[in-house]
Amino acid sequence: MLVVQKYGGSSVADADRIRRVAGRVADVRKAGHDVVVVVSAMGDTTDELISLMNEVTDCPREREMDMLLSTGEQVSIALLAMAVFELGLPVISLTGPQVGILTDDTHTKARIIDIQPNRLRSELAAGKVIVVAGFQGVNAANDITTLGRGGSDTSAVALAAALSADLCEIYTDVDGVYTADPRLVPDAKKLPYILYDEMLELAHLGAVVLHPRAVECAKLYGIPVHVRSSFNLNLGTIVREAGETERPNVVTGVAHDLNVARIAIFDVYDRPGVAHHIFEELAGAGVNVDMIVQSAMRDGINDIAFTVSKTEVKKAVAVIDRIKEDVGSGGFAADDDVAKVSVVGAGMISHPGVAAHVFGALADTGINIEMISTSEIGISCLVKASEALRAVRALHDRFRPPAGGE
Amino acid sequence: MLVVQKYGGSSVADADRIRRVAGRVADVRKAGHDVVVVVSAMGDTTDELISLMNEVTDCPREREMDMLLSTGEQVSIALLAMAVFELGLPVISLTGPQVGILTDDTHTKARIIDIQPNRLRSELAAGKVIVVAGFQGVNAANDITTLGRGGSDTSAVALAAALSADLCEIYTDVDGVYTADPRLVPDAKKLPYILYDEMLELAHLGAVVLHPRAVECAKLYGIPVHVRSSFNLNLGTIVREAGETERPNVVTGVAHDLNVARIAIFDVYDRPGVAHHIFEELAGAGVNVDMIVQSAMRDGINDIAFTVSKTEVKKAVAVIDRIKEDVGSGGFAADDDVAKVSVVGAGMISHPGVAAHVFGALADTGINIEMISTSEIGISCLVKASEALRAVRALHDRFRPPAGGE
Repeated sequence: MLVVQKYGGSSVADADRIRRVAGRVADVRKAGHDVVVVVSAMGDTTDELISLMNEVTDCPREREMDMLLSTGEQVSIALLAMAVFELGLPVISLTGPQVGILTDDTHTKARIIDIQPNRLRSELAAGKVIVVAGFQGVNAANDITTLGRGGSDTSAVALAAALSADLCEIYTDVDGVYTADPRLVPDAKKLPYILYDEMLELAHLGAVVLHPRAVECAKLYGIPVHVRSSFNLNLGTIVREAGETERPNVVTGVAHDLNVARIAIFDVYDRPGVAHHIFEELAGAGVNVDMIVQSAMRDGINDIAFTVSKTEVKKAVAVIDRIKEDVGSGGFAADDDVAKVSVVGAGMISHPGVAAHVFGALADTGINIEMISTSEIGISCLVKASEALRAVRALHDRFRPPAGGE
Repeated sequence: MLVVQKYGGSSVADADRIRRVAGRVADVRKAGHDVVVVVSAMGDTTDELISLMNEVTDCPREREMDMLLSTGEQVSIALLAMAVFELGLPVISLTGPQVGILTDDTHTKARIIDIQPNRLRSELAAGKVIVVAGFQGVNAANDITTLGRGGSDTSAVALAAALSADLCEIYTDVDGVYTADPRLVPDAKKLPYILYDEMLELAHLGAVVLHPRAVECAKLYGIPVHVRSSFNLNLGTIVREAGETERPNVVTGVAHDLNVARIAIFDVYDRPGVAHHIFEELAGAGVNVDMIVQSAMRDGINDIAFTVSKTEVKKAVAVIDRIKEDVGSGGFAADDDVAKVSVVGAGMISHPGVAAHVFGALADTGINIEMISTSEIGISCLVKASEALRAVRALHDRFRPPAGGE
């Protein structure tokens, strides 16, 4: 069996933890399996590099940020390879460029285009454990790129896909995927299984346990992903496809995202191309827009509101300020005192009453809904930040997602 | 003009110093010259990585050490490139592998075999300042290698050679090459020029200002190397070939090396192949032997003594202990309470009396000589460590090397 394992920064935060990870890797290898291990930068390394960077410059070039930050994972792989070797196993560390993780040119949030498995295959054939630097790749110009936050998850799943691995294990500091954040909702339960689409929806909605791109990639290639803790031996949550006869949960989990801000543009022309212009300009500035709502037309003018992550408010406001005359806007407002709460379940597509239950649960708790958006398997509501916790608990109480499925 | 500059770890030890180096680089670029900058790891980075490594393992694999240590320079080049960009100049950082600094497979002390100048030339043609990671390269298997202590000097000179640079400047924390270590000999003078061969001899003899391999490479390709301080604008010392009509100094400088230990093997067979066997075994164990003396034969047996660096005593002793029976030895002794003092001058080859003057100066100061070795342009004596300082001063007083040549 070929297993790809990924260990996050907290799992390799110091020498002791690195040795512990080496022990886990060795156990799998000694059981006769081939192992490819993907690691992140140790603990706070990335933050330390960023603060060093901030001492040097206010506006770093993104190519050079990737050059800088990719050293964090390189340190981890060297040390982990040493620790695995110390346990008597043949082992080799490889950087993203050495593996041949080819990405596009979008420095600091590159996408993986292709993985050349030749070197991986020959090192595996030589009986070696392979330790790969997560989060990084190389573009066609031979420049180092990084995949953005959570990129190591994507590295691991993409490697599993390229090698047709039997299993991909994502080791993290939580036990798996819960029906809600257990720190907020004491009776949240760990899910033994979750469907790709549900995990994707949860990941997009703010559940940080697995990066959305990693889930997309796992779904595309049908790689089962086991999300579990590196600090114990408990089974975690397996992210997978639905079985043929399986009836999906109406609601699998409740998610929340505090990193949200709303921007509303008032009184824009009600005319073809206006929304296109606004969101094209935002995309051009690299702003990721999440929810979008356009109000009903009154007298030939509209209000358009959308949400972005808190960190992108400044960029978004600059864009809107620049183009507001083009779209005839009478003004705009930004509000970052909001949060998004969501329910997710692949079964809700065949249960039309779910939205009403969501709105009912929030209304019964006295929580005002500021914005609504829906997908085939999720319903999200924007609420005041101060009410997020109550909203999550109310939704979890109402739906009591059945951990373990039917 | 194309200038290659190299800045050592102390020159880029923090954000302020990195910005200062960026300023120097910018000045050269703005004066219309092309610039390739080679940098070492920041200040204590390498030592910090090594202590982290020691927490993980006692016997690190050398390939993984190179993987680990090469991150230090990668951090430096990213930050320096950011600082240069902040000054408004187009700039790009490149790792050793990206430059195409091809080395052999000797991890932790690899030798440069070839440099592919394609990427360098195209980035220079695009008007960019290039910031290159010193100390590192890549072997034919695409694995990262490092060049060993002082390797960044070699990187710089090799790059200057590959690009046919007009000048190679080595910025360091001293003002240039002195007639003796100015911390020990107050009236030591800075040399405006020194010949390649003299510099090579001094470097081998313990003057740490420039790495011997860098000097060899500069000599081979005829690259003039300007050794100077990054903390002031003073001219330093130019290492170059002798002019056609130039008469070299009899003695250019006095060097000393405290990192020396002597190992003596007593009563070995006086038989062909014995010395070969000893030194082949030492070489096989990676021990670099410096001075070698074989005493006159008595009754078919010999004493053989040699020196190694203090850090290699343990390795050397293990080898000798293992092979002592093969060579018939009655025992051996190691002594690390010694130092080497040397005089160097390209002119001594035509002045046969120099050795006598060296021995005389030491004798007059009451210093016992424990071992002697000579080359065409240098004479070295092993003395007690506690007498090294007096020996250096006595030799400098005797020869008063004329800074500035004729």
